[in-house]
Amino acid sequence: MFKHVDYLQFQAKPEKPDAVLAAKMQELVGGQFGEMTVMMQYLWQGWSCRVPGKYKDMIMDIATEEIGHVEMLTTMLARLLEGAPNEAQEKAAAANPMLGAVMGGMNFQHAIVTGGGALPRDAAGVPWNAGYIVASGNLLSDFRSNVAAEAQSRLMTSRVYNMTDDRGVKDMLQFNLARDTYHQQQWLLGIEQLIQDGFTENGIEDSNAEFEHPEANHTFYSFDPASRAGEGRWAQGPTLNGKDEIVYVPDAQPLTDDKPLGPAPDPKLFVTYDGQMGKGKPGTAAGATGQGVANVVNKIKGALE
Amino acid sequence: MFKHVDYLQFQAKPEKPDAVLAAKMQELVGGQFGEMTVMMQYLWQGWSCRVPGKYKDMIMDIATEEIGHVEMLTTMLARLLEGAPNEAQEKAAAANPMLGAVMGGMNFQHAIVTGGGALPRDAAGVPWNAGYIVASGNLLSDFRSNVAAEAQSRLMTSRVYNMTDDRGVKDMLQFNLARDTYHQQQWLLGIEQLIQDGFTENGIEDSNAEFEHPEANHTFYSFDPASRAGEGRWAQGPTLNGKDEIVYVPDAQPLTDDKPLGPAPDPKLFVTYDGQMGKGKPGTAAGATGQGVANVVNKIKGALE
Amino acid sequence: MFKHVDYLQFQAKPEKPDAVLAAKMQELVGGQFGEMTVMMQYLWQGWSCRVPGKYKDMIMDIATEEIGHVEMLTTMLARLLEGAPNEAQEKAAAANPMLGAVMGGMNFQHAIVTGGGALPRDAAGVPWNAGYIVASGNLLSDFRSNVAAEAQSRLMTSRVYNMTDDRGVKDMLQFNLARDTYHQQQWLLGIEQLIQDGFTENGIEDSNAEFEHPEANHTFYSFDPASRAGEGRWAQGPTLNGKDEIVYVPDAQPLTDDKPLGPAPDPKLFVTYDGQMGKGKPGTAAGATGQGVANVVNKIKGALE
Amino acid sequence: MFKHVDYLQFQAKPEKPDAVLAAKMQELVGGQFGEMTVMMQYLWQGWSCRVPGKYKDMIMDIATEEIGHVEMLTTMLARLLEGAPNEAQEKAAAANPMLGAVMGGMNFQHAIVTGGGALPRDAAGVPWNAGYIVASGNLLSDFRSNVAAEAQSRLMTSRVYNMTDDRGVKDMLQFNLARDTYHQQQWLLGIEQLIQDGFTENGIEDSNAEFEHPEANHTFYSFDPASRAGEGRWAQGPTLNGKDEIVYVPDAQPLTDDKPLGPAPDPKLFVTYDGQMGKGKPGTAAGATGQGVANVVNKIKGALE
Amino acid sequence: MFKHVDYLQFQAKPEKPDAVLAAKMQELVGGQFGEMTVMMQYLWQGWSCRVPGKYKDMIMDIATEEIGHVEMLTTMLARLLEGAPNEAQEKAAAANPMLGAVMGGMNFQHAIVTGGGALPRDAAGVPWNAGYIVASGNLLSDFRSNVAAEAQSRLMTSRVYNMTDDRGVKDMLQFNLARDTYHQQQWLLGIEQLIQDGFTENGIEDSNAEFEHPEANHTFYSFDPASRAGEGRWAQGPTLNGKDEIVYVPDAQPLTDDKPLGPAPDPKLFVTYDGQMGKGKPGTAAGATGQGVANVVNKIKGALE
Amino acid sequence: MFKHVDYLQFQAKPEKPDAVLAAKMQELVGGQFGEMTVMMQYLWQGWSCRVPGKYKDMIMDIATEEIGHVEMLTTMLARLLEGAPNEAQEKAAAANPMLGAVMGGMNFQHAIVTGGGALPRDAAGVPWNAGYIVASGNLLSDFRSNVAAEAQSRLMTSRVYNMTDDRGVKDMLQFNLARDTYHQQQWLLGIEQLIQDGFTENGIEDSNAEFEHPEANHTFYSFDPASRAGEGRWAQGPTLNGKDEIVYVPDAQPLTDDKPLGPAPDPKLFVTYDGQMGKGKPGTAAGATGQGVANVVNKIKGALE
Repeated sequence: MFKHVDYLQFQAKPEKPDAVLAAKMQELVGGQFGEMTVMMQYLWQGWSCRVPGKYKDMIMDIATEEIGHVEMLTTMLARLLEGAPNEAQEKAAAANPMLGAVMGGMNFQHAIVTGGGALPRDAAGVPWNAGYIVASGNLLSDFRSNVAAEAQSRLMTSRVYNMTDDRGVKDMLQFNLARDTYHQQQWLLGIEQLIQDGFTENGIEDSNAEFEHPEANHTFYSFDPASRAGEGRWAQGPTLNGKDEIVYVPDAQPLTDDKPLGPAPDPKLFVTYDGQMGKGKPGTAAGATGQGVANVVNKIKGALE
Repeated sequence: MFKHVDYLQFQAKPEKPDAVLAAKMQELVGGQFGEMTVMMQYLWQGWSCRVPGKYKDMIMDIATEEIGHVEMLTTMLARLLEGAPNEAQEKAAAANPMLGAVMGGMNFQHAIVTGGGALPRDAAGVPWNAGYIVASGNLLSDFRSNVAAEAQSRLMTSRVYNMTDDRGVKDMLQFNLARDTYHQQQWLLGIEQLIQDGFTENGIEDSNAEFEHPEANHTFYSFDPASRAGEGRWAQGPTLNGKDEIVYVPDAQPLTDDKPLGPAPDPKLFVTYDGQMGKGKPGTAAGATGQGVANVVNKIKGALE
Repeated sequence: MFKHVDYLQFQAKPEKPDAVLAAKMQELVGGQFGEMTVMMQYLWQGWSCRVPGKYKDMIMDIATEEIGHVEMLTTMLARLLEGAPNEAQEKAAAANPMLGAVMGGMNFQHAIVTGGGALPRDAAGVPWNAGYIVASGNLLSDFRSNVAAEAQSRLMTSRVYNMTDDRGVKDMLQFNLARDTYHQQQWLLGIEQLIQDGFTENGIEDSNAEFEHPEANHTFYSFDPASRAGEGRWAQGPTLNGKDEIVYVPDAQPLTDDKPLGPAPDPKLFVTYDGQMGKGKPGTAAGATGQGVANVVNKIKGALE
Repeated sequence: MFKHVDYLQFQAKPEKPDAVLAAKMQELVGGQFGEMTVMMQYLWQGWSCRVPGKYKDMIMDIATEEIGHVEMLTTMLARLLEGAPNEAQEKAAAANPMLGAVMGGMNFQHAIVTGGGALPRDAAGVPWNAGYIVASGNLLSDFRSNVAAEAQSRLMTSRVYNMTDDRGVKDMLQFNLARDTYHQQQWLLGIEQLIQDGFTENGIEDSNAEFEHPEANHTFYSFDPASRAGEGRWAQGPTLNGKDEIVYVPDAQPLTDDKPLGPAPDPKLFVTYDGQMGKGKPGTAAGATGQGVANVVNKIKGALE
Repeated sequence: MFKHVDYLQFQAKPEKPDAVLAAKMQELVGGQFGEMTVMMQYLWQGWSCRVPGKYKDMIMDIATEEIGHVEMLTTMLARLLEGAPNEAQEKAAAANPMLGAVMGGMNFQHAIVTGGGALPRDAAGVPWNAGYIVASGNLLSDFRSNVAAEAQSRLMTSRVYNMTDDRGVKDMLQFNLARDTYHQQQWLLGIEQLIQDGFTENGIEDSNAEFEHPEANHTFYSFDPASRAGEGRWAQGPTLNGKDEIVYVPDAQPLTDDKPLGPAPDPKLFVTYDGQMGKGKPGTAAGATGQGVANVVNKIKGALE
Repeated sequence: MFKHVDYLQFQAKPEKPDAVLAAKMQELVGGQFGEMTVMMQYLWQGWSCRVPGKYKDMIMDIATEEIGHVEMLTTMLARLLEGAPNEAQEKAAAANPMLGAVMGGMNFQHAIVTGGGALPRDAAGVPWNAGYIVASGNLLSDFRSNVAAEAQSRLMTSRVYNMTDDRGVKDMLQFNLARDTYHQQQWLLGIEQLIQDGFTENGIEDSNAEFEHPEANHTFYSFDPASRAGEGRWAQGPTLNGKDEIVYVPDAQPLTDDKPLGPAPDPKLFVTYDGQMGKGKPGTAAGATGQGVANVVNKIKGALE
């Protein structure tokens, strides 16, 4: 359960309105790596976390903080979108109805849809969607995603920071930059803690490791004869899990003589076919569909016997 | 420019058709972390890379390999979708038109839309979209995203690996698991290389670091009085960039008395308002819009003088 | 079945072209509450309506009208996008190839994609999608959605109305405003009619009302100790269905000691877990999946016995 | 700013796992009218609200409650997805690896993507997106949307309630049903309060009412000669704002002789055209684009003079 | 303007309910090439058509027919979703509450969201969106898209036709198949008419033909040394516009020594860069952004002088 | 499997940066008919093709070429987005921090998200998605889609070609225009080859032709009494498959007395209903759901007996 405190975590007071800056800052609200993403990603990971105690509490703490960050951003944007700037001459120009069409970079929906408020969309106006977030239940994989999200988020914030001279906006973004710096480390330290607590040996997701192809897990394949990729650390020296020496394969060739070709198609599906792979195997009325039926029925039969 | 070789990188031969497995394996083709994602993400990062030589070549090499992985997966799915299974009794059942409606988990679009081929969609049938990928031009941030993508991708692959006993499918997935193991390390080694080459000091994205808020970059704020998050490494000890000791703040309070409230709205936007913040500042005809006009005109004026 | 009459319902004649206004008016075509939304929402509700006669006919009538409204809007936008304005000096400026890049607020796709026609997209360029509409088969719930759609649609229209001085555009928008005024009332009167015809007792969706939690249906829970929400009518006095007095609970507490935590995970899914909830229950090969299998088979068994 | 309390608002304890029910209940989490929608819609409206005090606090209170409802639902779904059911015979069946393909209605992503947790998606597996929510700044319009959201949400909940006999699931849904009953009334009472406080005269969104077309705002147009829509209250009697008597127009005709046809196209856009409307007016290089240029330049000229 | 006639164009009477077939038939309603697509595509093309008379009328006629086809399909689906089948034994099974979880292929949203009606979604449950349609204003290009849409639509319909034995469903689909056969030809005949009327010389979209690269317009480049593509008609003989003989280039090589590499990046954007292309050119505060500013201001200057 | 060659297929060297042109050219990268679409469409069709040899190789050859076209475009855009233009005065203006808000048409994400690189999005900023592509397995239908894609793609390219005077951009677009000219013909010649090879009789998709409605396949129905559609070739003369004379039906009437109305709804779904179609047939707990259960169980029974 959640509670609300009617103060911002950090102040969001621009010196003066700037509608174009508000349009840009939408990326920090509803972009792929905006505050909505980390808020929803951490909430979801927290709810999915199966290790109660320090792990789950840590995730919920930061998730709860991030709800407040969306609040800070939406407040900042509403203020940047205030109806008119302070200076007299600008007010005069603004009053000139002849200028109605000059919309250099403003986001029309800030006026038409929200009446001067932030949108749950990115800087291109695309609505936020849950395809941006990840919560796999596996803390190592998710912490890796979180480090990345904080790094990307910080980079976007840092670019926007350079796009304004507004002291108030910069103040808030300095707080956000600092949080992203800390949070990157928090998740990396989380991985150290996972190693220390025995949840992963070396920070590499390696479930079912015992089954994986024994060469392909330490080989760099190059697909351009002129590639200089072999000069990097990734193409030489020991692997990070300490199990192998990396092998570099220049101008890699297929490892099989298998060609990319599907089987003879079910004639009832009207797939173009010349018969050279033999007769297509029809299912009931509709190819693969029929096969699905067969599988289901057969297996249920087995279970019932 | 690219070339095609008409062999798969690794064989994709299932022992027998299994349409339901094909439906599940769509996640590995067109899911958030399917092969389409890494193919497109690496192509895009390669094209955006401004460090020619080992970095750009390395990214293009793996991107090129990933196109071939989508090819392997689509071939595998087409074969899993073959019209009918081998065993006689199943063929008989499949021929029974009474069973047409039993579609236990099959993906109807595999029959209706592709005629027995893979879809560029995930296991829920949602089309792949470019909102899944990232290419920021900043190699540190992007390599972090790539480690995460490989870890998540490997986890999904590993879960699917446990869902089948088909020897041929498992063979190919073992190759994929191995590549994901190697690729995770490749990107982590890429970060080591970036540090060694001086592109980042310590692997933390910290552009504009000189401006960030001096306390917030090493503080853990907790928002639940009962939280045990303070027990973790992320809440104590030195930060990873070696600049500070982490501070843990239990039951964090607002750092400001600023309240989340927008300014008085432009009356022409018909936002509900009781006047308690004073008179709204109208722009031309439409609030924030008018202000955008004023900003543009004023600033162009300045440039022309 | 439908018929077409080759006249607009109401004229759509702008005084002169204005490409930036056209970009804004896209919100009224393909936005969340644009004409495409009400057209498709009412068509779908009409087709889903199970009360033939005045209800179904009323919905189909307004749906049919709305197709014509999209037609009016698309015609208006094509005319606003006409190649050049009337005045000589503007034509001269337009002929200046040096100006090719000044695109203050224009929608590039109006030139590149449609060649001077409207787009089925909103003012941010996002394609219309069917996630905007609702047709539940329950007329009370749907009429509530329709009142809301008309109110939101009218508000957007009213905001756009204030953004232009073009007499021709304003004429058409006055017609649209009027229709939205009438249609809001039409749907509210529809609810009155539903009450009168006995389809709902009091306009509150209350199916399965006999089962609902007896306190929670008339209680306002507040989650901020400083909240002043208790001052409103919603926090005191009789409920609208006349069954209870509203109870106001300041600083609400959890109603349970149940904590948000999932069960011990299936080990084959590689969810991070420390064992403190006991051993995870594995299914067949893949956790929850196996359980699904068990449920299906067991229940079919029951049905067959 | 927000805080978290580590207890659920209401308990979420199913009697036993049921993966298929979990797939259905996704609609209540991430559907068009799932808990994510009301959570995000109310948060956004609260942040956009310009009437501090009882209105803003009320919206924030319910928004904060809804975050906790998503938490309840995700906890419930994780428990429904537990690896195996309690009964012995079902466990046995689940252990049968032959059954791996029988996926009667299960959501594969519950295993592959979340490892046994809820998804931020609807019952069809479509990710939640911000196109579902509305926050216009106008409380009347938004409260109308909120009544509708609660009614639709309650209806979906009520349908799902009938799909299970699980006592624990039903208990929680009874709480949810009750909240939706109360919340419908809360928003309707909010409209009463808006009227009482003078923010709206009669609950009809009628900004710019003085300009609207004087007949079209109280006329029902019918577009099917056989329509019986005239029998309803919406086609007769006084309007709800008390200003007019409703007029019913059977077999409505166009109100203009204006035909739906765009102007002569710019020849450089290669729109098919036979010249019968005269010569297309070319802009610079690209039709409507050129006109946009002209408008911008001309209007800036005016402002600078 | 449109009118409605309260009869279907063609009857939609299934012999008996079949919820799984309804789930499949969603592809014909809201799929990429379902009836919603052709309805919206033709309406949009009709509204965008600048050749009044036979062309515009023809497009509007078929668009109007297609609205009625969505009506037929939604009616059919509602009937296929009827609560229970006719036969006694099936009714008995349906009454068994133990079976609640067996949902072999049913679409849950058919019950939860629409209460037994069609959805505006495809067979995978993905909502229809306007990204499926095209209306370019160029009749040749659009008629090509329309031929394709009818061919794809017919193929999907034909596959579904084979999936049922229901006489009533098959009757309606026979009508749909026939319309798709005729409509394919209608659009191809439309292209013949365009040629005859002089709107295109040979049915190839060739605007700005005088500028195109003189060799690349009749050359087949092969990118696989083992390719047998040279055996096809597309790689030999005269081009269809009669202007050239097709040239076949096996194992094609780059036509330039230009390498895929962006310029030196603006340092303020924090793109990883080693300086080997010289110093990045900074704009104002934010790279490319600054350059956009410069372009705009410079060009407006030119226009004002 | 694929290989990479580190040269572009054709040079991509703009004379000078132009960020606004880059924003427009996004349509050619990630638009509905941008290079990403043809790249992915042809790859997918190639992988789905069941006719090895000239057909499959031809599709793979062009698919491989198109990957290189995306590479050319992304390179061009990065160069157009270079930090600052060459001319001194523009550099000066760019250095003026007062101009920060003038963003005439620039795409903010080009700075914030990619740091000066192309985006996988269209000119409106909407991410590319796989709903744009088609691969049905049926070569006739797919070649029809491909002709259309090339025609639409060429038209967009041609429109953009007219929007710039940059010699370097125009050079590359001339190459692209030429390829689109050739590719249109390639796919049309592919259809000729399909006819010659006996895969289709006359280029009309007519699977299950023997079953289609005998009149509806050669009839033009008009739905507007004033329509002049009868004057076109599509309404008279022989059909293209040579089997019939086209019939023109003015003012078409319904072919049935069936009305668009669903059956009596299951009462447990709370669909509004007045009982006039009799009693709704309830399933188990949830209408159509129960019927699905019945169907599945009954049919499995049949298979097991």
